[in-house]
Amino acid sequence: MNEERKKSLQSLKTARGQIDGIVKMIEDERYCMDISNQIVASQALLKRANLLILKQHLNHCVTQACLNGGSEEKIDEIMAILEKAMSK
Amino acid sequence: MNEERKKSLQSLKTARGQIDGIVKMIEDERYCMDISNQIVASQALLKRANLLILKQHLNHCVTQACLNGGSEEKIDEIMAILEKAMSK
Amino acid sequence: MNEERKKSLQSLKTARGQIDGIVKMIEDERYCMDISNQIVASQALLKRANLLILKQHLNHCVTQACLNGGSEEKIDEIMAILEKAMSK
Amino acid sequence: MNEERKKSLQSLKTARGQIDGIVKMIEDERYCMDISNQIVASQALLKRANLLILKQHLNHCVTQACLNGGSEEKIDEIMAILEKAMSK
Repeated sequence: MNEERKKSLQSLKTARGQIDGIVKMIEDERYCMDISNQIVASQALLKRANLLILKQHLNHCVTQACLNGGSEEKIDEIMAILEKAMSK
Repeated sequence: MNEERKKSLQSLKTARGQIDGIVKMIEDERYCMDISNQIVASQALLKRANLLILKQHLNHCVTQACLNGGSEEKIDEIMAILEKAMSK
Repeated sequence: MNEERKKSLQSLKTARGQIDGIVKMIEDERYCMDISNQIVASQALLKRANLLILKQHLNHCVTQACLNGGSEEKIDEIMAILEKAMSK
Repeated sequence: MNEERKKSLQSLKTARGQIDGIVKMIEDERYCMDISNQIVASQALLKRANLLILKQHLNHCVTQACLNGGSEEKIDEIMAILEKAMSK
């Protein structure tokens, strides 16, 4: 597993732990703004996890496709993700 | 627990299940773009969970504070969250 | 005009000036990443302009509606904007 | 000028026209939520303009750099933009 995937995995596991905590906060009827702040923090972790996956994708898969003359399809695929990711 | 909090809780639990799946996808060395797509889907769930919390906060806490003449502090608090939430 | 609207207006005018510059950059065939960076800077200005409008809306219109017992419709209206604004 | 740059230019010019309208809306003391909706529409246009610039950058500059063995620097540059763009 490359370095970016390792770091992405770590961010995802931290996010999962945070979400466990947020579920408990709601069950415990905690204050809305504290819950909201924790959700925003988890969103930041997912965003980071995604950027790391995209980075290693560009560095490995796209570079490889490019050398083999098939980068156009890969780029369309990335653009579709970016359009969605910029809306989250 | 009010309706919005129940729905928010449901979104968070679904997101947690998805993240479990994404962790497994990375461990199984799955294709980058499939992983990225799933992360984006989880981000959408967290965003929805947060909007629901914000909605019931406005409907209950802010409305209450407003009637008691103390809404300014509540609004500053919401604006701080919105500023962060719009960046995630 | 209240203070937030004045600041929002200023941000919008600055963004408009920046976009003039970006149009010229594209016409002059400037480097993609320099163009992209400037677009992102303009997006930040629009986001700031929007947060300022939302803030004074909460402080004035929503607080007023709340005292008059009609805040629910106002809150639905804000939630619809937030949902869109968090996707931009 | 390539097709994506032409479309990006068009989006930017439309956004500029919209911002002219929003400036006038604020000067005319129009309703907050109408202003906010228009700002969000302009943000969508800037986002689209940016995605088009990124797309042609990947298709042209990055593909070229990749064939010449210098894609790593280009990818770092794109990642820096994406990180910022996903926060706007």
